[in-house]
Amino acid sequence: MSTPWSHRYAQRTQSLTSSTIRELLKLTQQPDIISFAGGMPAPELFPTEQFEDACHRVLGGQGQAALQYSTTEGYPPLREMVARHLARYDILAEPENVLITAGSQQALDLIAKLLINPGDRLLVEAPTYLGALQAFNVFGADYVSVPTADDGLIVDRLDEALRSGPKFMYILPNFQNPSGVTLSLERRKALVELADKYGIPLVEDDPYGQLRYEGDHLPPLIVLDRQTHGIRLDNGYKLGNVIYMSTFSKTLAPGLRLGWIVAPPEVIAKLVQLKQGADLHTSTFTQMVAYEAARGGFLDEHIKKLRQVYHERRDVMLEALSEFFPPEVSWTRPAGGLFLWARLPERMDSTRLLEAALRQKVAFVPGNAFFAGSADFAESNRYLRLNFSNAKPDMIVEGIRRLGLVVKLQMGRSGSVPSQLRADAICA
Amino acid sequence: MSTPWSHRYAQRTQSLTSSTIRELLKLTQQPDIISFAGGMPAPELFPTEQFEDACHRVLGGQGQAALQYSTTEGYPPLREMVARHLARYDILAEPENVLITAGSQQALDLIAKLLINPGDRLLVEAPTYLGALQAFNVFGADYVSVPTADDGLIVDRLDEALRSGPKFMYILPNFQNPSGVTLSLERRKALVELADKYGIPLVEDDPYGQLRYEGDHLPPLIVLDRQTHGIRLDNGYKLGNVIYMSTFSKTLAPGLRLGWIVAPPEVIAKLVQLKQGADLHTSTFTQMVAYEAARGGFLDEHIKKLRQVYHERRDVMLEALSEFFPPEVSWTRPAGGLFLWARLPERMDSTRLLEAALRQKVAFVPGNAFFAGSADFAESNRYLRLNFSNAKPDMIVEGIRRLGLVVKLQMGRSGSVPSQLRADAICA
Repeated sequence: MSTPWSHRYAQRTQSLTSSTIRELLKLTQQPDIISFAGGMPAPELFPTEQFEDACHRVLGGQGQAALQYSTTEGYPPLREMVARHLARYDILAEPENVLITAGSQQALDLIAKLLINPGDRLLVEAPTYLGALQAFNVFGADYVSVPTADDGLIVDRLDEALRSGPKFMYILPNFQNPSGVTLSLERRKALVELADKYGIPLVEDDPYGQLRYEGDHLPPLIVLDRQTHGIRLDNGYKLGNVIYMSTFSKTLAPGLRLGWIVAPPEVIAKLVQLKQGADLHTSTFTQMVAYEAARGGFLDEHIKKLRQVYHERRDVMLEALSEFFPPEVSWTRPAGGLFLWARLPERMDSTRLLEAALRQKVAFVPGNAFFAGSADFAESNRYLRLNFSNAKPDMIVEGIRRLGLVVKLQMGRSGSVPSQLRADAICA
Repeated sequence: MSTPWSHRYAQRTQSLTSSTIRELLKLTQQPDIISFAGGMPAPELFPTEQFEDACHRVLGGQGQAALQYSTTEGYPPLREMVARHLARYDILAEPENVLITAGSQQALDLIAKLLINPGDRLLVEAPTYLGALQAFNVFGADYVSVPTADDGLIVDRLDEALRSGPKFMYILPNFQNPSGVTLSLERRKALVELADKYGIPLVEDDPYGQLRYEGDHLPPLIVLDRQTHGIRLDNGYKLGNVIYMSTFSKTLAPGLRLGWIVAPPEVIAKLVQLKQGADLHTSTFTQMVAYEAARGGFLDEHIKKLRQVYHERRDVMLEALSEFFPPEVSWTRPAGGLFLWARLPERMDSTRLLEAALRQKVAFVPGNAFFAGSADFAESNRYLRLNFSNAKPDMIVEGIRRLGLVVKLQMGRSGSVPSQLRADAICA
C-alpha cells in the first residue's frame, strides 16, 4: 500500500534490502534457539556487579554531569583511557585523535558520510563485514573485492585492485568478520606499502584485536603505516594514511553502544561535525559508566577471562565440527575473535541449509550476505558464518551436532542417502 | 595542511561549517559562565536517585539483557510506554509505530536520510531549529522559509510555499526552538488542510509539548491530520501525512540520548533499516534504565515539578528583561518550552553582542544560526535566543542584568552614550 511518504523516499533508500542478520537476530531472541548467528558476547560473562558499582559511583558523585548534554567528541577521561590503552599496542594517539562513537557501526556510518560520494569505488575483502556494507551502501558505494585466503587477503590481487584507484580500502586484519582469518605480518607490510605507493588510504577495523587465543600479537596497520612514514614525518598522525576503529562491544558490553575512531586531527574535526548532526553526542551516562567500570585495571582482567572462555569455546566448536560434520565441509581455524567460516560442498546452499537448521532450532548466518556487490551468489552461499562466543560449550556441541545432521541430510538429498532416513536421524 | 584524506571528502562535507552552538557549548562548560546558550535542562532537577534505583533494578534483575545487543526498533516496554503516553494526547500510535532513536537529533538524521535527495527543497519556519538544519544540510537540502509571528507561522505565506512543491515541511508547533512561539489552533488546522490539499507531508517536532506553563494544550498536527482524514481512512496511521517526533531529553535527561519517531509502519520499516546501518540500535542499557526510572507514574510527577520550576524561571527572565533591557529591544513571551527570542534595534548585531557578553561571562546564541539558507544576515542577526531552564533564578537576574548593560553599551557605541561610561557600568 502506498502512503504519502512512499513516493518521496530518497534515491539512497533503493540500496536498502531486508537484512538476513536482522531477521536472524530476531529469531535468536527465542530462548530455545542455539544461535551461532549474531556476534554476541557470552552474556553470563558481563560484569553486571562491576557495572552496578560504576552506576552507583557515577550517579552518586557526578549525577548531574552524567545526565546532562556533553561534548560531541566524547567524555574526556574515556578518550584518555582509549589513548592510553592504544599506546600499549604502539598506536601513539593523543586523546584529540580519539572520537567516541555509538559503537563501531556509527564509526562506519560517519566514515561513509565523510568519504563516499555516490558511485565511489571502495576496496573490500571478499568476504567482509556485513554491517560495513550496509553503512557504505546507503551512501552509494561501489566495490572492488579482493579475495582472502588463510593468511588474509591475497596480496597478488591487491596490487591491481589498489591501482584501480578506489576511494579507500576497508579491512579487518585480525580474526576477520566473517572468516576468522588474520592478515599475516608479511601481508600487512605489503598492504601498507602498496597503499602508500598508490596513495590509497586505509580504514582499519579492529573489534577483536584483544581477543587472541594463540600466537603473537601482530602490529596494526596504523602502526606499520607510522613506521613506514616515520622518517619523513615529524608530526605523528597528522599525515597518517590509516583511520583505525575499535569498540567496547566485544570486551565490555555491546548494549552500551560504545566504540571509537582514531584519525588525524583534521579528520576527527570533520567527523565531529558529522556526528553532531547525527546524534549530538554519545550518551554521557554510558560513557561515564563504561569509564568507571573499565578503569583501574578491571577491563584488562576481564579480557583475560574472556580470552580463556572464548578460547575454550572455539576449541569445542572445532572439535564438534570434526566429529559431526561430513568431510566434504571445510572450515577456518581462527586464532582469535568470535567467528569461524565453513564451506559447504559444491551446489549446496547455506540459505536453504538455514531454513532446515532453524526447524532444528539452530541458527547461523549464510555466507552471501558478506560479499559486496557482484559476488557469485552460488559460490558465496556455499559459506556459513558460525559464532562461537555466545553459546555455552554443551550447547555448541549440541548445535553443531544438529547442524551436522542437517548438512548430511541436504547432501543426501542431492546425493545418494534416502532423505527419510536422515529426517529420522534429526528427530532422534 | 593537507592529509591523505582531505582531498577525498565527499561533496556533502562542503555543507559543514563550524557551528556557533558547538563552540558555545564548549564555553558554557566553564563554571563561571551564566549560560542562556544551550537548551540544557536544570541539572539540579535530574532525578539521580531515581536513576540509581533504576540501574540497581535493571542490572540486578536483567543485567545480561541490558548489556547485550538488542533489536533496532527499541526496547519493547519503552515503545509501549511511549505509545501509552501519546494516547493521552490523542496520538493513537501502536508500539509498532514507534521507533526509539538516539535523541531527537538522530530522528532528524534518519528522516533526512530517508527523504532528502541533494537539491530537494524543504519548507521550514524562519527561524527554525539549528540542529534540524545541520541534519538536513548534510543530505543536500535546499529551503523555502515561511516567516513566523506571535501565533506561529504566517498562514498567508504558507499557501504559496506549499504550492511550490517542497519534499516535506519541518515544523515545531509548541514553544518553538528558537522563538518560543506556539502555532495557534486555527493555524494548525489551516496548515494540516493546506498540506493535505497540496499533498505535502509534515514532520512535526515536539520536544517541549509537555512543558506548558500557561494556557490549554493544543492538539498536535498528527492528531488534526487523523481527524481530517478520519472519515475516509479505516486503517489508522497507515496513510498518515504526519511524522511526529519527540524526546526524553527535556523531561527525563538529555545525557541518555533517547528520543522517538511516530510514523506509519511502512515508514518505520525503512527508518529501522537506516538506523541499523547507522548504529545497530540505541543503547539497550539506557533504554531499560529510562523505562525503569519513568514507569509507575514517576515521569508524570517529575514533569509537574519541571513545569513549576521552568515556569518560575521564565517569569524571572521576562521580569529581568523588562527591568534591565532598553525599551528598543523586544522579546517573545513563550507559553512553555525553554527559550525566548529577543530582537535588537536595527543595525545591532547579536554576534558582536555575544563577543562582548562573553567577556562579562554571559552566553546566548546569535539569531543567524536559526535561519535556513538565504536569510538576510543583518536582519536575522538582530535576534538572540535566550534559554531560561538551565540557570537558577538569581543567576538569570544577574545574567540579564549584565546582558542588558552590554546591549546598552553597544547601542551607545552606535548612538550617543560615551562608551567609557558604559564600560565602567559593566565592571561595577
